[in-house]
Amino acid sequence: MNSAPALTEQPLDPAFEARAINTIRMLAADGVQQAKSGHPGMPMGMAAAAFALWTRVMRYSPTNPDWPNRDRFVLSAGHGSMLLYALLHLTGFDLPLDELRNFRQWDSMTAGHPEYGHAPGIETTTGPLGQGFANGVGMAIAAKWLAARFNKPGYALMDHYIYAIAGDGCLMEGISSEAASLAGHLKLDNLIYLYDDNHITIEGGTDLAYTEDWAKRFEAYGWHVQRIDGMDTEAVVQAIAAAKADPRPSIIGCRSVIGYGSPNKAGTAGVHGEPLGEDELKLTKEELGWPLEPRFYIPDDVLAHFRQAVERGKALEAEYAKLWEGYRKEYPAEAAELQRYLNGELPTGWEEALPVFPADKPVATRNASGTVINALAKTVTNLMGGSADLAGSTKTMISGVPAFQAGEYGGRNMHFGVREHGMAGILNGMALHGGVIPYGGTFLVFSDYMRGSMRLSALMGVPVVYVLTHDSIGLGEDGPTHQPIEHLASLRAIPNMTVIRPADANEVSVAWKIALTNSGPTVLALTRQNLPVYDRTAEGMGGAEGVARGGYVMYEAAPDGVQVALIATGSEVEIAFNAAKQLAGEGIGVRVVNLASWELFAAQDAAYRAEVLPPDVPKLAIEAGVTFGWERWVGNDPRKGAVMGIDRFGASAPYKRVYAEFGLTPEAAVAKAKTLIQG
Amino acid sequence: MNSAPALTEQPLDPAFEARAINTIRMLAADGVQQAKSGHPGMPMGMAAAAFALWTRVMRYSPTNPDWPNRDRFVLSAGHGSMLLYALLHLTGFDLPLDELRNFRQWDSMTAGHPEYGHAPGIETTTGPLGQGFANGVGMAIAAKWLAARFNKPGYALMDHYIYAIAGDGCLMEGISSEAASLAGHLKLDNLIYLYDDNHITIEGGTDLAYTEDWAKRFEAYGWHVQRIDGMDTEAVVQAIAAAKADPRPSIIGCRSVIGYGSPNKAGTAGVHGEPLGEDELKLTKEELGWPLEPRFYIPDDVLAHFRQAVERGKALEAEYAKLWEGYRKEYPAEAAELQRYLNGELPTGWEEALPVFPADKPVATRNASGTVINALAKTVTNLMGGSADLAGSTKTMISGVPAFQAGEYGGRNMHFGVREHGMAGILNGMALHGGVIPYGGTFLVFSDYMRGSMRLSALMGVPVVYVLTHDSIGLGEDGPTHQPIEHLASLRAIPNMTVIRPADANEVSVAWKIALTNSGPTVLALTRQNLPVYDRTAEGMGGAEGVARGGYVMYEAAPDGVQVALIATGSEVEIAFNAAKQLAGEGIGVRVVNLASWELFAAQDAAYRAEVLPPDVPKLAIEAGVTFGWERWVGNDPRKGAVMGIDRFGASAPYKRVYAEFGLTPEAAVAKAKTLIQG
Repeated sequence: MNSAPALTEQPLDPAFEARAINTIRMLAADGVQQAKSGHPGMPMGMAAAAFALWTRVMRYSPTNPDWPNRDRFVLSAGHGSMLLYALLHLTGFDLPLDELRNFRQWDSMTAGHPEYGHAPGIETTTGPLGQGFANGVGMAIAAKWLAARFNKPGYALMDHYIYAIAGDGCLMEGISSEAASLAGHLKLDNLIYLYDDNHITIEGGTDLAYTEDWAKRFEAYGWHVQRIDGMDTEAVVQAIAAAKADPRPSIIGCRSVIGYGSPNKAGTAGVHGEPLGEDELKLTKEELGWPLEPRFYIPDDVLAHFRQAVERGKALEAEYAKLWEGYRKEYPAEAAELQRYLNGELPTGWEEALPVFPADKPVATRNASGTVINALAKTVTNLMGGSADLAGSTKTMISGVPAFQAGEYGGRNMHFGVREHGMAGILNGMALHGGVIPYGGTFLVFSDYMRGSMRLSALMGVPVVYVLTHDSIGLGEDGPTHQPIEHLASLRAIPNMTVIRPADANEVSVAWKIALTNSGPTVLALTRQNLPVYDRTAEGMGGAEGVARGGYVMYEAAPDGVQVALIATGSEVEIAFNAAKQLAGEGIGVRVVNLASWELFAAQDAAYRAEVLPPDVPKLAIEAGVTFGWERWVGNDPRKGAVMGIDRFGASAPYKRVYAEFGLTPEAAVAKAKTLIQG
Repeated sequence: MNSAPALTEQPLDPAFEARAINTIRMLAADGVQQAKSGHPGMPMGMAAAAFALWTRVMRYSPTNPDWPNRDRFVLSAGHGSMLLYALLHLTGFDLPLDELRNFRQWDSMTAGHPEYGHAPGIETTTGPLGQGFANGVGMAIAAKWLAARFNKPGYALMDHYIYAIAGDGCLMEGISSEAASLAGHLKLDNLIYLYDDNHITIEGGTDLAYTEDWAKRFEAYGWHVQRIDGMDTEAVVQAIAAAKADPRPSIIGCRSVIGYGSPNKAGTAGVHGEPLGEDELKLTKEELGWPLEPRFYIPDDVLAHFRQAVERGKALEAEYAKLWEGYRKEYPAEAAELQRYLNGELPTGWEEALPVFPADKPVATRNASGTVINALAKTVTNLMGGSADLAGSTKTMISGVPAFQAGEYGGRNMHFGVREHGMAGILNGMALHGGVIPYGGTFLVFSDYMRGSMRLSALMGVPVVYVLTHDSIGLGEDGPTHQPIEHLASLRAIPNMTVIRPADANEVSVAWKIALTNSGPTVLALTRQNLPVYDRTAEGMGGAEGVARGGYVMYEAAPDGVQVALIATGSEVEIAFNAAKQLAGEGIGVRVVNLASWELFAAQDAAYRAEVLPPDVPKLAIEAGVTFGWERWVGNDPRKGAVMGIDRFGASAPYKRVYAEFGLTPEAAVAKAKTLIQG
């Protein structure tokens, strides 16, 4: 791949190169010192390797940071953010020097850790260790898939690489183990990682806790492994060339000196996470032959050298535009499709593919989701995903299309293995890369395993769809370890995460429609057990499309006014509905409010919310999970509101028994509702 | 180690052995069939290895499952629970056959996955994959530590092994990578794991997603690695002997056939997670020469053979009692101390060690916690722990004592590396083993990484102390990736988890006192930034010991009645306190309620709760996190209650600026309080 000529130039004059590298080092040291906060050591140690990568290897266009065939750079060791900010500024991205001066200040583009969307050229939010490592694997998967689908002889439209700098911490985190094992399995040869092998962690030397043979471990994963002097730019360039020549993902151990240049702190944990201090900064500048003033000094010739990236980027784009023009003529349908994928657009009329389920027989919402995925997949042809080894249970498999595997990169069914955290980090990377619409499935309870990555989906606002099935004690026999109890609450607590718990198959269709048009991540909480498909034409029934507003009146029988509102989500809507029928039969004015998505409901205007949940009507909420949080909707006055939930762990037994033992029954709801009406 | 004679007997008559192993297989198959739910494949494949381990290797006493020097057995692949239940019943633990018949039924001892505390001999709750793997490492650490502290020449009081059966899923999970790397680093030679290498996962063959060279990976971690025929009992016994002879942790790859014996399903994913079905069960019994009826058939001679474990266990105990008697005479102080450790008792008067902090200068609660840990560690001499490479930040280091390292197993400072999930799984294992009081630290935001294990701490009810610092936007510059927002809410949502967020240094002392006497897990949420130490003798002030009740009136100035209550936790108590002072100065009757622990407060009687938070008083809650859940205390009527919180992600800047920009200030609180008073 990468048939276009590499950017490699001849080695520079050593003195000039040293100045260029020291520019990165001193921008980082100055930035951290000015902020009185940050991590100077990593940028100082990895400046040479980063310099080689950004000036002699990587293909990108600073004035068009979204150029689709750019190489991606992931700073998995996100605490070294000043390294990235220095590179972005120097190479001509729209990141003014004043932003480096404002490192870690309110409203700057230069947050403590790289934040996706805060500055052009930041490909992903990093800082929580290991996440970037997994994101890169996801990006590599998306790139491979697009290449397999669209590249044609003479048209290498997608032939970029994914580069990352990862540290000891990234390599120690389990998420990177998971992602690395899968990357090796998939033979992602477009993945080239530089490992900052500096032998220092926050608590001290890596020998305190990390003495494994990392190189051997990566060989075991099926990676190409090299060890080089990471301070030697030529070695870095050559190692990357060797990496490109190998048909496996590559990791290059760059032996570096953390805080290089600091006479008293280099090579120590003391330079990892705090400013050098004014005195040591001065000594460092003296050591490196750097002017003490001004701060943030950039020699003109060094800047000019870096800024060649702008013209080089434009040239790459021009070359690419020609390629694209030819492709468009020769393969117009493919070109249009690729363009649509890259624009993140859905095909016209895609919603028509959404299935409508008849009300005659019960369907588990996980099964309905499987039907929806398969229906959508025919039209939304870049929908791809899979599960963490639970496809048969999560119903996440697309029928009739191959798996995404080594050598079969056009496949759309992902086998993530038993690797939830890796899966979620990879899904983020796929979404960030663009061109694909990723989803991933596991049991709701195992959202715990991937929460680190799910939070980043929400923080970055990337449209990953989490298909989380077996969403309550309704899974039955597998018992407390597998029964989510606190998970709906704890996912709802994440800002910018849209959690939807549909009550029947038709609501699943609506939920998927929301998920595919959501700019951020969506959780679909789905049942293992069958649920009725409601007849929406029956008297008093609201339509399933009400889910789009988060909460809606799903059923009402109250000719003389609503005396009590039963609020429920997902499978417990059935309990509420059956209770309501019984109450209505007794002449009590009752309403069932389906609160499928708290976030979507909260986003409605106050008038609508008050219409659905009138303040003066007693309310009974029913959900097979912790009651925590429900007071938002029912208040905390026990005379006016109550919650039927589960404030303990679950139990292993057939699910109907568990529901009954936990008091989650229509009968209990009827009794409670009557108590509330009596006040 | 293990100087006492091994239990190894001569190999059995092959036909008899086959019947004994088939007894395990068929109990598992019958149990799953009867429950119409479960995982027969793993027990059938690993029955031979388990038989060898439980009858020829392991040292335990079925009639005294808590015998302290027993070998521990962890079924990390917890879905194979029927394997464990069969072994426990057969070897004479108090698990009647009827309980096997009641597999996965309400109120049985035999839950879908092994649940700690449900039946004797279950050493840990497993099912979520990889957890047991990490638990075992924690058990090995505790065993090593106790051995280093108490074993004397001629007195190998603690010389047991930790055995586990782990599956492909366990090995794919990141948590096991983390724990394995640390175990190798620590050279835990008392750890012997059998890896059920059956080449099958739920989605199909392991070649779908798992083609790494696992053996090489474990060698890279520093483990002793063997590959054997896992269906050959003699090979298992010999491999374990070789493992014992090696000074590293050991993993033994047991090539097995999942669902062995099933003519049509053996070796396929179809036998992993569902009953064989009546027809296939019949065919399987025919294949294995097993009577079709009765179900749960145990040949008398087989049972007699297994039940020798009872007498063998009593003999081991008798031998141990003699050893113990000699030890007690020769080393009375050590004997008393070890006994106390094993009983889980704290030394008399330990609370006196808790520091009292003067009110003259501000202290970050993380620093106060560091002071408390160090003060306690002198008295509570089995308190041990550390952090996931953040000791300097979390203040979790005990001064003047060595690190727990290979060859220095008496150390009490743990270096877990950047491995949060592994750390938490290990902490659970340490607590389960007993004899030590484990704690672990990281930033609160990274509780996301270890939530899978934290949930199991709560589910099992083991007393792990989680020291989670940098507990809000108050950490400042590190920014959104490091600032917890939803974490207090999502931890409070976990049943049986006690979350305490102390407001000053003296409350930290109280919080640690609670943590060390809590039968379950405790989260201490602590600040990076300094907080005032309140003068509890000043007028209107309540004592710090109020934290023990979860919520208390910390300040009141309301001679004519309380017009408004300001409720806060941790660092935001300062905001509430300053606002209250200002309101009081204006003659408004005000109260500050410190709601340090929702769980402890909720456990108080209704009268106390109503006294602290009178229903008719307007309430303003202030917490630097999501408002989610706060309606429990302030209601959802905006005229009577309000919450000042953060329903978005954080921001990178000096923390005072972030607080101000997010509107969390005394001034804003005063204004809001006045609005509430006006109604």
